[in-house]
Amino acid sequence: MKIIDIIEKKKKGFPLCEEEIKFFIDGVMSQTIEDYQISALLMAIYFQGMNIDETTFLTKYMVESGEILDFTDISNDVLDKHSTGGVGDKITLIFLPLMAAAGIYNAKLSGRGLGHTGGTIDKLESIPGFQTNLSIEEFKGKVKKVKAAIAAQTRALAPADGKLYALRDVTSTVDVIPLIASSVVSKKIASGANHIVLDVKYGSGAFIKTPEEAQKLSEIMVEVGKRLNRNICAVISSMEQPLGRAIGNSIEIIEVIEFLKGNIEPDLKEITYALAQSAFEKTGKFNAPQKAREYLDELILSGKALEKFREIIKEQNGDVSVIEDYGKMPQASIKYEVKSDKDGFVSNIDALKIAKACKNLGAGREKKTDSIDYSAGIYLTKKFKEKVQQGETIAIIYTNKKSSIKESEELVKAAYEYSLEEPKEKSLIYKILN
Amino acid sequence: MKIIDIIEKKKKGFPLCEEEIKFFIDGVMSQTIEDYQISALLMAIYFQGMNIDETTFLTKYMVESGEILDFTDISNDVLDKHSTGGVGDKITLIFLPLMAAAGIYNAKLSGRGLGHTGGTIDKLESIPGFQTNLSIEEFKGKVKKVKAAIAAQTRALAPADGKLYALRDVTSTVDVIPLIASSVVSKKIASGANHIVLDVKYGSGAFIKTPEEAQKLSEIMVEVGKRLNRNICAVISSMEQPLGRAIGNSIEIIEVIEFLKGNIEPDLKEITYALAQSAFEKTGKFNAPQKAREYLDELILSGKALEKFREIIKEQNGDVSVIEDYGKMPQASIKYEVKSDKDGFVSNIDALKIAKACKNLGAGREKKTDSIDYSAGIYLTKKFKEKVQQGETIAIIYTNKKSSIKESEELVKAAYEYSLEEPKEKSLIYKILN
Repeated sequence: MKIIDIIEKKKKGFPLCEEEIKFFIDGVMSQTIEDYQISALLMAIYFQGMNIDETTFLTKYMVESGEILDFTDISNDVLDKHSTGGVGDKITLIFLPLMAAAGIYNAKLSGRGLGHTGGTIDKLESIPGFQTNLSIEEFKGKVKKVKAAIAAQTRALAPADGKLYALRDVTSTVDVIPLIASSVVSKKIASGANHIVLDVKYGSGAFIKTPEEAQKLSEIMVEVGKRLNRNICAVISSMEQPLGRAIGNSIEIIEVIEFLKGNIEPDLKEITYALAQSAFEKTGKFNAPQKAREYLDELILSGKALEKFREIIKEQNGDVSVIEDYGKMPQASIKYEVKSDKDGFVSNIDALKIAKACKNLGAGREKKTDSIDYSAGIYLTKKFKEKVQQGETIAIIYTNKKSSIKESEELVKAAYEYSLEEPKEKSLIYKILN
Repeated sequence: MKIIDIIEKKKKGFPLCEEEIKFFIDGVMSQTIEDYQISALLMAIYFQGMNIDETTFLTKYMVESGEILDFTDISNDVLDKHSTGGVGDKITLIFLPLMAAAGIYNAKLSGRGLGHTGGTIDKLESIPGFQTNLSIEEFKGKVKKVKAAIAAQTRALAPADGKLYALRDVTSTVDVIPLIASSVVSKKIASGANHIVLDVKYGSGAFIKTPEEAQKLSEIMVEVGKRLNRNICAVISSMEQPLGRAIGNSIEIIEVIEFLKGNIEPDLKEITYALAQSAFEKTGKFNAPQKAREYLDELILSGKALEKFREIIKEQNGDVSVIEDYGKMPQASIKYEVKSDKDGFVSNIDALKIAKACKNLGAGREKKTDSIDYSAGIYLTKKFKEKVQQGETIAIIYTNKKSSIKESEELVKAAYEYSLEEPKEKSLIYKILN
């Protein structure tokens, strides 16, 4: 078998067979296939696509390129929730303590963000002392003990995906549906959980722009996951506007704690509960939606979910006193209020513009080696449907970079759209695929 | 400017501007653009194409990536004839002495073959002593003195093309019309001749399979050449059947000498004369076709063309006694006659099958470092339209590899097609683009 014949075959639009995909991944790992041949094949895949069989084989051999975690000694019902990423997306941090409080084991490996704000790992690391660089044994131990652990993605899992992703990132082949699907699913499968709940987002603040594309990607991920023996589902939701009011790192942690204390933003609740209901169905805990919602309410009102979050923080060496004293979280030296130029109801807040404003303030990174200012971010004092008067504060900018304020303020103002009439309530959930 | 943005732009189907193409070629030369990014862009070009502006800029900057020869101190009318390659294609070796005998300067740089038989350089090197590795000064000196010289392509000319070609060869991006066009034309322009005659072939024995594709490629090459101030034309002809009767290296040289001695194969004459007429028009020597043909006949009958070939061989250190004694050329130890299984008229001889049979006998190379058996090849005793009886010899196999005979014999037999009626004469010339 020769890689050039495989490239030629894909270039001409023919599907690759299992042996060819295995040969490719083996060659990626053994470095017997050159990077310039890999990138040529990736670009051919951008144009010619991959069918579900090919995507499944690609996923399978990426999984087999590294270690595969196994939790069967702990439980036969271990959950992994994964988001394709959004602006202000702190759902994982609300979801995990809730699920653990409900008695479900959660094994969550997460990446660092290369986007406009940090990823889940970065947000957690804004809690003083919080450790996410866990060995596989430590990770498993904490899942067993607390029923939830969150660790930084290890290179030992699906290393072929890591290699391909590094090349995709520099050859303009990131936006390829079958490659995205196999990348996400391979990491999830290697992470060992048997139940997988995917939180797939579309819109201005997501890398997928339309619900149709999100559905296409979700269908492929769910099908590939099922073929590789995982109990998998996807909740597809809108990411046109930021989730919650806080966008950044430490301020998102504070919003999570507030949620668990019962100060609940409706959009965060809508997504979290939809994911939780799917998780309950997957693990066989509840099938009736109403019962599930009541149970989730009770986990919050009773303080059980917050207690679980405290346990998670403690177990991973974080400073639990932040729960009572937000002053212990990293603090920005500048708080700047953005005022509205107009009267009206907020009819839209463009997630991408808010995200760009946050990055500009220091909340994100461009390269893996960049450092993040955990305290930087934007708090939206006015959200969708809320009434605003000219001169009223619509958002608060947190930063240590004075020079960044002007540009961020302009971005925030440009993100806000207003209407004269109060806009209608919209459901964020587009579809749930089981 | 970033290469990833250029890849993305092409991937999305937008034309690249002059600055972007210059940036790309500069980056290829300075190695600031990685091979995996180059190959991703090449694959995107395969799918999205390049318009004539882009192809012209690509050609221009490939030319400017290296040295550009200049013959204006010798003549303002220097000719370069280039073939896209075919089976049994020894036209250059007939054409050059004819043109030089007609008083036209010929500066011919040629590649080694990576195909089924050697290239023009390999064929010439089958003449004992013949030197093709000339310095630029030696090359120019010989053009001036003999009016014709043939040297191996130097890496100093259009080196960016060399780098791109090396990558295209291993990433399945050879068959991309604008890349082929810019590769051919950039080398021709850097070679310095102001008149360029392109011999573009299509069919089973060419890398372009249809006359439509050949025309498309020719139109682009002619347009790009004109935009870059060259007096350029293209003769498009069929390569469904081998040219002449000899296919190999030394046996093709013998066929060339025979032609110049007046033993003329009609197909070789048709192509050579068409190219010569175009060259006469380009250089302003003759415009009337009939006069040109009579003049060419006269150059052969008088022995002037053969004398010129002798001069060329002598000037490049070759053994001129081969002209009178073919026994001085490399000899194959085995001559094997292939007999016909059928009666009939030869209605087709598949060029590709004959080429494969030749390679199998040792006449070609797979890698640049492979050596060629100059004596290996196939002589077609029966050609198109000729009557054959069962058991009659249709071809003679020349080789030193006894083990290769059986497979080559089968290929030769499979290449021959027969009809009961004598097939009609066909013109090989499809179109001439001026």
